[in-house]
Formats: sequence, structure tokens, C-alpha cells
Amino acid sequence: MTNTTGKIFKVTTFGSSHGKALGAIIDGCPANLELSKEDIQKELDKRRPGTSAVTTSRSEKDEVKILSGIFEGKTDGTPITGVVYNKNQHSKDYSSLKNTPRPSHGDFGWISKYGNYDYNGGGRESGRATIGHVIGGAIAKKLLETQNIKIISHVVQIGNIKAEDINLKNIEKYPVRCGDLNKAKEMEELILTKKEEGDSVGGIVETIALNVPAGLGEPVFSKLDGDLAKALMEINAVKGVEIGLGFDVANKTASEINDEYYIEDEIIKTKTNNSGGIVGGISNGQPIISKIAVKPTPSISKCQNTINLETKENTKIEIEGRHDPCICPRICSVAESSTAIILAEHMIRSGFIHPNKIIC
Amino acid sequence: MTNTTGKIFKVTTFGSSHGKALGAIIDGCPANLELSKEDIQKELDKRRPGTSAVTTSRSEKDEVKILSGIFEGKTDGTPITGVVYNKNQHSKDYSSLKNTPRPSHGDFGWISKYGNYDYNGGGRESGRATIGHVIGGAIAKKLLETQNIKIISHVVQIGNIKAEDINLKNIEKYPVRCGDLNKAKEMEELILTKKEEGDSVGGIVETIALNVPAGLGEPVFSKLDGDLAKALMEINAVKGVEIGLGFDVANKTASEINDEYYIEDEIIKTKTNNSGGIVGGISNGQPIISKIAVKPTPSISKCQNTINLETKENTKIEIEGRHDPCICPRICSVAESSTAIILAEHMIRSGFIHPNKIIC
Amino acid sequence: MTNTTGKIFKVTTFGSSHGKALGAIIDGCPANLELSKEDIQKELDKRRPGTSAVTTSRSEKDEVKILSGIFEGKTDGTPITGVVYNKNQHSKDYSSLKNTPRPSHGDFGWISKYGNYDYNGGGRESGRATIGHVIGGAIAKKLLETQNIKIISHVVQIGNIKAEDINLKNIEKYPVRCGDLNKAKEMEELILTKKEEGDSVGGIVETIALNVPAGLGEPVFSKLDGDLAKALMEINAVKGVEIGLGFDVANKTASEINDEYYIEDEIIKTKTNNSGGIVGGISNGQPIISKIAVKPTPSISKCQNTINLETKENTKIEIEGRHDPCICPRICSVAESSTAIILAEHMIRSGFIHPNKIIC
Amino acid sequence: MTNTTGKIFKVTTFGSSHGKALGAIIDGCPANLELSKEDIQKELDKRRPGTSAVTTSRSEKDEVKILSGIFEGKTDGTPITGVVYNKNQHSKDYSSLKNTPRPSHGDFGWISKYGNYDYNGGGRESGRATIGHVIGGAIAKKLLETQNIKIISHVVQIGNIKAEDINLKNIEKYPVRCGDLNKAKEMEELILTKKEEGDSVGGIVETIALNVPAGLGEPVFSKLDGDLAKALMEINAVKGVEIGLGFDVANKTASEINDEYYIEDEIIKTKTNNSGGIVGGISNGQPIISKIAVKPTPSISKCQNTINLETKENTKIEIEGRHDPCICPRICSVAESSTAIILAEHMIRSGFIHPNKIIC
Repeated sequence: MTNTTGKIFKVTTFGSSHGKALGAIIDGCPANLELSKEDIQKELDKRRPGTSAVTTSRSEKDEVKILSGIFEGKTDGTPITGVVYNKNQHSKDYSSLKNTPRPSHGDFGWISKYGNYDYNGGGRESGRATIGHVIGGAIAKKLLETQNIKIISHVVQIGNIKAEDINLKNIEKYPVRCGDLNKAKEMEELILTKKEEGDSVGGIVETIALNVPAGLGEPVFSKLDGDLAKALMEINAVKGVEIGLGFDVANKTASEINDEYYIEDEIIKTKTNNSGGIVGGISNGQPIISKIAVKPTPSISKCQNTINLETKENTKIEIEGRHDPCICPRICSVAESSTAIILAEHMIRSGFIHPNKIIC
Repeated sequence: MTNTTGKIFKVTTFGSSHGKALGAIIDGCPANLELSKEDIQKELDKRRPGTSAVTTSRSEKDEVKILSGIFEGKTDGTPITGVVYNKNQHSKDYSSLKNTPRPSHGDFGWISKYGNYDYNGGGRESGRATIGHVIGGAIAKKLLETQNIKIISHVVQIGNIKAEDINLKNIEKYPVRCGDLNKAKEMEELILTKKEEGDSVGGIVETIALNVPAGLGEPVFSKLDGDLAKALMEINAVKGVEIGLGFDVANKTASEINDEYYIEDEIIKTKTNNSGGIVGGISNGQPIISKIAVKPTPSISKCQNTINLETKENTKIEIEGRHDPCICPRICSVAESSTAIILAEHMIRSGFIHPNKIIC
Repeated sequence: MTNTTGKIFKVTTFGSSHGKALGAIIDGCPANLELSKEDIQKELDKRRPGTSAVTTSRSEKDEVKILSGIFEGKTDGTPITGVVYNKNQHSKDYSSLKNTPRPSHGDFGWISKYGNYDYNGGGRESGRATIGHVIGGAIAKKLLETQNIKIISHVVQIGNIKAEDINLKNIEKYPVRCGDLNKAKEMEELILTKKEEGDSVGGIVETIALNVPAGLGEPVFSKLDGDLAKALMEINAVKGVEIGLGFDVANKTASEINDEYYIEDEIIKTKTNNSGGIVGGISNGQPIISKIAVKPTPSISKCQNTINLETKENTKIEIEGRHDPCICPRICSVAESSTAIILAEHMIRSGFIHPNKIIC
Repeated sequence: MTNTTGKIFKVTTFGSSHGKALGAIIDGCPANLELSKEDIQKELDKRRPGTSAVTTSRSEKDEVKILSGIFEGKTDGTPITGVVYNKNQHSKDYSSLKNTPRPSHGDFGWISKYGNYDYNGGGRESGRATIGHVIGGAIAKKLLETQNIKIISHVVQIGNIKAEDINLKNIEKYPVRCGDLNKAKEMEELILTKKEEGDSVGGIVETIALNVPAGLGEPVFSKLDGDLAKALMEINAVKGVEIGLGFDVANKTASEINDEYYIEDEIIKTKTNNSGGIVGGISNGQPIISKIAVKPTPSISKCQNTINLETKENTKIEIEGRHDPCICPRICSVAESSTAIILAEHMIRSGFIHPNKIIC
């Protein structure tokens, strides 16, 4: 516990890497939203592995089935259940991992906390658990589209290579999902080098939400930036979150970075968007911009020191398997999903979307 | 809404900068915890302004009164209400701020959302609202002390001056709360320079929590790092949160930063703590380390462009008043409080502290 | 914990019978609602004791102070804090009650659970704790009035005397708050007889909510009748809750009690209202009618058997003090309040009232 | 929304009568609880219809599949997903019900609220939705068994026939689940008579929970009786809830019904249990006893008046299908489940069961 996010638009995810199935229940989606299996499948396809050399070579189809919540092509106000059944989940013997926690991997904490740890493929600590996020995010996106809100995540840094000349239209062109095509090439090469070395590399992913109205987020303990920071930090491998300028505010003065207001054609705008669209925890109508720091995938084949929990002795580990040498490209769909889920929640909570039914 | 944080150890704060009172109700603190007014007052004293040249010269005493929840010197399981009554709250005319939103200040979002905005001293958007955080944090700290957990926040950067040779024992020596005494001097000078220019400057604050057991935090949507990120991002002026290495993970490889395990005297440790004490959302028994990016206080006396919401015309604003030229030193007590509240919640939730009464 | 009700319109109450103060924080009330101290005071005056022979002769003024949440006569979206400071709270020595739990009183459970029990005047188990309910209820009522919703509670039975010929306009005429004036007289006599005997008597209170729209309440685990049942059962002394026919459905057939629909002047109505305005957990537009069974006040001066928790021996107790010989008349204002709080929550949750601000 | 109950032991149910599947996710069950498919199936078998003449003749097998949450025969701290796939769900044409709401049935409220109503077999308003309750309840019972807590529901009244000489060992002997065998016979006859008349009849079900420790339930807004009242009232067809004496307290005096304490063999007991095991919202260690009033199934074949929502004209309806002539016998397993879910929640919340793992 607890595998639920949201108070009104609630997403509960379930399932482990090698269990029977993974999925999500979405409760609180207004009725009368047109929704099909394909709306969800297309988002899952962005997340799934095995589609390029820069991700893991494991190939998983990840086909979603909808078990409830849709009537005559539209949501009907009941919980929407989306399930991906695992195929061939017992392909390998993971039992060597049972007692030797992987450095910087979640298994040690899990064992400390629960005692009973499903070590197959990382159990629920696996990145595969984000299938549930993407199912929830796909529905959130569909709901946000009724208000013209769009969300895009893209890679802005891999290792020491930083995107500079970004064109968002280019992010689908290379599997690294970077809008600076020259840098995208370099990033790809870096990832492949690290992959060959049995190592992995980190990076930074930016998420932009367009057309979000002013007034989302509540003061003090349910601020929009607080909820986004939580949702993004809870994606596996994320170690930092920034809104707007982020850590660059540290060596700036207010006169350098304050976003001044002006009116143009009766619309209130800001000259700059250093705040990333959120001030005092409430959206101000500008694009909402966040960045996340993504650590290198901890499961690597290089030899590492660890311990044996049973014998209580120091030992070594070489983690087999086809792990992502850089998780940034695939994390984009999860960052979009987590952002969409938070925005859907706040759009309903702030009265922009009716809580029970879509009203046109 | 919503001014409550926590599910079990719940803190609800209330009050506006110039209203009758500010305070907090803490519900879910186990009974039989020794607690006095002084335990809370000493934390409020760290937060209160007017104590040095680097903070605002406004002087507020901020004396707490306890209205409920203590019986014979101990908590009794009922909600603890702590109140700070405002003195002389109508000292100044703020009405010029009614219709001219301050750049990068929360007032515009508030007006968009609620319509009725208490513009006196920033209303509930004021930093004064963190009095409630500190009351809640003081009680959380007292509770955590029963488990030997300690929390310390200190300044590690102001503007472009970064602390290098940090000794935590020194942080009380200068009002900037920096443990590198040479840099502390420089930071103080920088702040005073900006103050004279009618400007303000940002910085970075680090928070360390010691003796937190392994096993706090729940997978997926209630991870310890997620809850901390939310709590810290929701402090006014914070634009970024890092756990452990934070954004430095981006250009590292796993073999460089993975925290390897070893056993010494039957205790499991990690050789490094790049994870900042949290992996996979669960604490691993190492110190929990976070950093926050604090923006320069947006209320400055330099002339800025803005709009008049009534006339819908562009205009200019010079914000009077005695604002903090750098909020980092005072934000430390809030960062400690927010961290303590989250840890108290998770210590109960994970069974380390009994939910109803202190058991010795 | 937990002293909060509601997810959107949230009421948190605090305070003990003889502590410094009792009160409530209301978080989630939309901004721009006209609200004065008098709106709350008039409801507290209905609840307060000492106003007639049928209630306790203790006289408490119960004057409310508003500490936050109102700006220029209207709510401003921030938490509204209402406080009643206790006067002369240390009038009596209750220490004899410390170790001898009163039969059918909450003190034994409290001691079992928390260890530290404020035995003065019943501590937080006292009926005085409902001051918080009434403060929350007064604000909920004011909010519901914007939608023309009215709530009335009245006494329909005391002991074996049942009201038959009820006129709701008469309920204020006698202190027993019964609309059948002949029976009201009899009820009053019965109460005074029991008072003289050092005993107390139970009764039944009915609550009617008018003009509630169809569509409130959510299927399965947040049904309107479920939330009402919880709110009403949580009033001290309540041992049963009915909606509509209640327990009378047991010996009826569907053909006798089904509420048939018809259309008149384009409005959908039901011929009968045996359902009490709620079917399948959702309101159907008819008046919402509940009944609660109120037990005789357990604190009586007659000699009773009990135990001494310290010596672990059987003993006897004669409870001194001026207790209500029948709590039904005073419970009416609490039943109205609890009902109003639930309806306010659901009116916002179902989109009938904007969550952030009153829109005319 | 909202289809979740519980804060720590959380049960989320999904699915409609004729959809692809129904089920539940249980989040917050401690790890290391032995749990098999059979533990759940045996409870579903008690609920399922078609097993006797007194229930509907529809026959549904209701086989559960577990999709997640069990590892090596024990819970592993992750969400447990139980699913019952529907067979032959499109057996009949229900479209005549699309626009003619059934008297005292939930469909009218649903249509008012959500617009899009799955009219097939009652959609999510169907009693079939309680499959989710029973899956959750089965797991709760298994958890409570580790603390020796047992829960039994039985029929005490059908129509005007009241059980008198009850022996709980007999409740499985007749399908009506009444422990007074003479009355059980009479009840059965009454139900069959009503069935032949195309009508249905109501009744009363009592639930007893044994071995619940003192100290469960929290004062004010999370009382044990409040949570039970909500859970029981939210079972379809329930119109009243009593704890202990219930409505019989109305014409009693305190001296008649107060539960006096005594000590025997160092154990504190009460001479009577008129409180039904809960006083002041907290359990006192005595058996917890509740009663629910169950209305006659509203779907009957007798001709009834209703309206056509499309034409907005008055019309008549004769509801076809094989409905339960009395739902009391089958509701027993749901009442047990709802009670178990609430007790599991409070046992964890009050520290009697560790929140993360079973500790022996």
C-alpha cells in the first residue's frame, strides 16, 4: 500500500513484472467520455520495450484489455479497469537475486519492509509496473483533450550531452526522443557505448503541458507544483524535479527572473515563463514546464559488491538480463502519464471539468 | 482547500498574514507524548523574522498558545491546536496591491481561483502561513525524538557562493545558517548588497535526517521520496527538489554512482549514499538527504512591469515593505518541519511508532 | 485521530469539555459566501444547554470567535476557524472518575485506547465536543441556502410517547422540539419525572432535508445514505439510523412500498417517499428523511456497579453533576449540522456548487 | 466514483452485471498472510445465486481468478486483484429498461447523475456488484482470523416472522440462514408465496463479530459504529442500521440499559451488552452486534406505474427476469464481508495488526 493516486480522478495500479497481469483501475473519470481500447493501446506502445537498440531488447507486446467502465463506446461513470496479461512470464530463473540485493535497486527496501519479495524480474519494483501509470495517463489525456490540453515529454540531456536547438516536432524522429537531431545522434551513440560496456547512463527529461487554465492547484498542501513533484519523483529512477528554472533560481536575483505581467488583446500574459506556469502553487495560464533527473538504470552486468542476506556475508553480483542502458526515452511516456493524471485531478477539482459527466 | 497534509499524522494549518491568528491543528499524534508550549515556541523562534540584518526587519514575536490536546503535560490522543495571535495586524495600507498582481507572486493565481483575495500582507500566500508548518513540525520532531531521529536544514548556496567545507556544528554561528564559516561571511555580504539594491537573491538549502530506519515509504504512489518532494516543493519559493545526487545523476553511469552494500559488525551499510537514503521509494537506513532550490523573494522594491486587473491596462509597481532579501536562512526551519511531518507520518504508517499511544 | 469529516468540504473539530477552547476548522468552503459570526452563533444558541428545565441546568454561553477565513464579510477560500473559549472550566473535581469507568459511557474505551484520559467533564467524549459539529454545520447550512436547501430536525418520540399529529411549524414552541404539541407536553413531563428519579430517557429524532436535487451520492462506497448513516451514528448516544421507512421495510412487500414515478408539469415525482429520498445510494429529488435512535444519557445519579481500574476490584458509582435527563431536544441541532455537512460535501462533489467560489 | 473503501486496508471494486468481469483490488493487506484462491472462492459460493428455491433461479458460477498480490502462497504487500469473468452476459434484451426507471430501483438516480446508463441486468447498480465486496471481505476475514476474530451474519426476521429461539449452529441448515429452525421453515414458505405472487418481501439480518479487542474506533469522525453504519447502509436494499439495542433504546431509561462493568478472573466484562460492543465509538471488548433492515427486492413482475424518460409520459412496467423474492439470505455474506473490511481496517489502524507484514 498505497497504490492509488488522486482524490477525485483516482488511479490504482496493480501487478508485478512476472505475475499473471498488470493494470490499473481508474475511478472518477466523468461519464460520457468517448474512450476505446485503441486510445490506451497507442500510449502503451510508446512505453513498451524492444522497439529500438537504445532500449532493452526484451520484446513485450503489452496488449490492453478493458474489463469494465465503458458502455456503448463511452465511459459510464463506473471504474475503468485496464489489464495487460503477461505472456511467458516464467522464462528465466531469478532465484539468485533472492538474497543478494542489487546496489541502488529497490529490492533491499522491499525485503526490509514486507519480508515476502517477488524477485522474478524485479516484482512490483520493476519498471513494468508503470504499465498501470500509462493506462491511467491515457485516459487522463483523453479527458484533458476535451479541454484542449496537450502534454509532451522529451529528452533534453543524456550523460553530458545537452540538447540545445530543440524542435518539438522532431522528438519522434529518433528513438531517444530528443528534439535536437544532432544531439539525438550523439546521445544514441553514448547509450550504445555504455550498453556495450555493461553499464548504463542517466539523463534529463522535460515535460510541457499546454493550454492549462489559470487557477489549478490549491494553496498550502495541495499545490499544483507539489502534486506534480510527487508524481514525477515517484517514477522509478527519478532523483530530482524542477518546475520552471528549477535549481537555476539559486544564483539569480528577483529582478532577473521575476515574470512580469502584460496585457495583449485583453489576454493577461507574462513576458517570461521562469516560473514554469506555476506561482504560489497555482497555475497562471502559462505552459507548465517540469524537468526530471533520471538516474542510470541500476541493474548492470558489471561486477558489483553486495551482501548475502541469508549468510550475512559480503559477496559480489553480476546482474544478467537485457536491461535498458538508458531509461530516459521510455520514461517519457510515464512522465506524460503522471503529469496527465495530476492535471485531470486538478481540472475536475477546480471546476473546469464536471465531476460526473462530460458536458459539451 | 486543502490545507491538510498527512493521512495518519495530520497537520491542518490556517490563518492569513494580517488576520486574527495563524496556527495549526495536529490530529493523529499518539497519546502520552510529553509536550509543552516551549517545545513549539523554540521552533517558532528559529522561523521568526527580525532577528538579524539578513532577514526582514519586521519584528514579530509569534507566541504560541495551545488550545487543546494536552492533558497533564502529555498528549491525550485528541487534536492539538496551536495558535499564534497576530498583533497590530492593520499597520499599513495594502490596498494598492488589490488590483496589481506582483510579478512571480502568488496573488494573481489566487485572484483567478477564488475571486476574494485578502491582499493585506499577502494574505494566506504570505510566508507567515508557514507558522502552521512549524507548529506541526515541532510536534513531529518531538515524536521522532522518541525514536532518536534528528533533522537538520542548512544553507549550502546563496547566489553563486557555494559552501564547500561544511561543519554542521557551525550552522547556528551566523544568521545565514551555513556550516562553512568563510562562505557564510560572503553569503551575508551578498545578501546585504542585494538588500541595498532593492533586490533579492536565491539559494539552496539541504536537509539531513539521521537515524531513519529502513522500510519507510510505500511502493508506487506513496513513496517516501515522492511525499518528501511534495512537502518540500509546497514550501513557498521552492522551485526544485533533489534526493541524494539529484540532477547530478544525469551525467553519471550506474557503475559510478550505484551504492554498493557491505556488512560490518552485522549491520548492513552502503559504501556511498548517492541515493540520499531512499531507493525505490523506500528508505534504506542511510541518512535521508534532500536539497531545495529557493528562488529570490519576488517582492522587491525595484520598479517592475505589471497590469491593473480592474482597468485592464499595463502599469508599473514598486513594492514597499521590509521583505527578506534572501529567504534561505528562515526557510530552514520550514524545511525541517515539512521533513519531520512526512517522517512522523511514515514512522506511524510503517509500524515503527504505535498509532494511538507512545509505548516505551 | 481522526477528527476530520469530508473530502472536499472538510470539517475538523478540536477541544475537550474543560480544556481552553473547543472549535472547528472548515476547509473547502467556496470563496465569496457571505458569512458572519452571527450565522454561526444562532446555531450554537440552539445547541447550548441551560435554556430550559428539560436540559441540563449547566449554563454555558458558548460565544464563537472567528480566527480566520473571512475577508470583507465573505469567505475567501482559506480555512475558516471558529473557536469557543471555555469559561470557568475548572469548577469541579472530577478526579473520582479517573479510575471508575461509567457504565455505557465512552471513558472505558478511551482509556483502553489512549492511556491518557482527560476525565474532566468527560474530556473529548463530552457532548460539548459537538460545538465543533455545529460550527461546521452552520457554515454548511449557509452554503446550502444558496441552493435553497433547508434542513430541520425534530423530536418524534421520547420514551414510549410518540408524536402523531406533527406540524413542523410548532417545533420551536416547546423546548422538547416536538411538532405535536399535545405529545410535546407529555414528553416534557416524562423527562422531568426521569430527572427527579436521577435517571434519563431515550427517544427518536427525525431530520428532513428539502430541495435536495437528484444525483447526489456515488455508487458503492460513497453512497449518500452511507455517508449520512455514518455522520448520524457518530453523534454521541445514537444507536440506530433509518432512511425513509427504515426498519419498517422488514415486514413489507415491494408492491406495498415501492415508490412509483409519475410526471406532472414536466417534473418527475414519486407517489410515495418510502425510500426517504435516496435510492441505490443516490438522491432522487424527494425530501431526504432520516431517523436516529437516541439512547438515554448514560451519566445518571442512580447508584451503578462498575470497577476500579487501578485496584482491579468491583465497586459502585453515583455520578454527580447536572446531566441532561434526555438529550433528544439538544441533539436536534447536531443532527441538522451533521446532515448539512454531508450535503454540502456532496453538492460540491456532484458539481451543483462550484468547488472554489460561489457563482451567482 | 468512488468505489474504494478504507484508508489503510483499501478495497476498490469494479464491474457491472453484464460487463466482461467484476472484481476487487485489495491494497494494504499486510505481507506474509497465507492466502489461496479457495479462501476467496468459498465466500463467493455463499453469495452466489441459484442454489435454492428462496433465491433467484439464475445460476452463476462466479469463479474467482487472482491476477496479482500473491507470491509463493502468501500475500507480498502488493495489491491483490481478484476477478470474476462473466459468462453468457448478453443472454437477454434489457433495452426496454433504458428509459423506464424501475420504482425504488437505483436506475433513475444513475441516469440523473451520469447520463450514460448500462441498463443490462442493472449495470453496476446490480446486486452482482457485491462480488467485489465478498472478495475483499474474504481477504479481510483471513486477516482477522490471525487475531481469532470471527464474523457471522444470520437472518432474524422475514416479513412478520421473527426468529426467537436462535442457535447459531443451525444457520447453515436451511437456505434462509435463520438459526431458529421452526421459524426458518415459516420464512421459507412466506418467501415462496411472495415469489409466486410476483412480489418480494423484506427482513432483518444480524451480524455478530466475536473476539474484537477493546480500543478499535476513533473518537468523533471515525468511530467504529459510524464506519460500520456506513458500510452496512451502503449494501444495496439496506434502509436501517442498529448497533446493540438500536431503536429499542428510545423507550428505555439509562438505569434499565446501561451496561455495568465487573471484573472476573482479572478480565473486565459487562453484565449486559445493550451497547452492542461499541460505546463512544470505541469497541469495549464485548461482541459487536449490528442489525440491518433489508427492503423487499424492488424488481418485481407485478405491474407498476412509472414514466418514460424519453417521451416524458406516464407509463407502466412489468419487470421480467428471475429476481430474488427475498434478498436477506444472500445478503448475509455481504454483511459479513462489509463488517470484516471495516474491522480489518481498524485492527491495523489501532496497532493490533502490523501494517506491513504479519508478525507471529
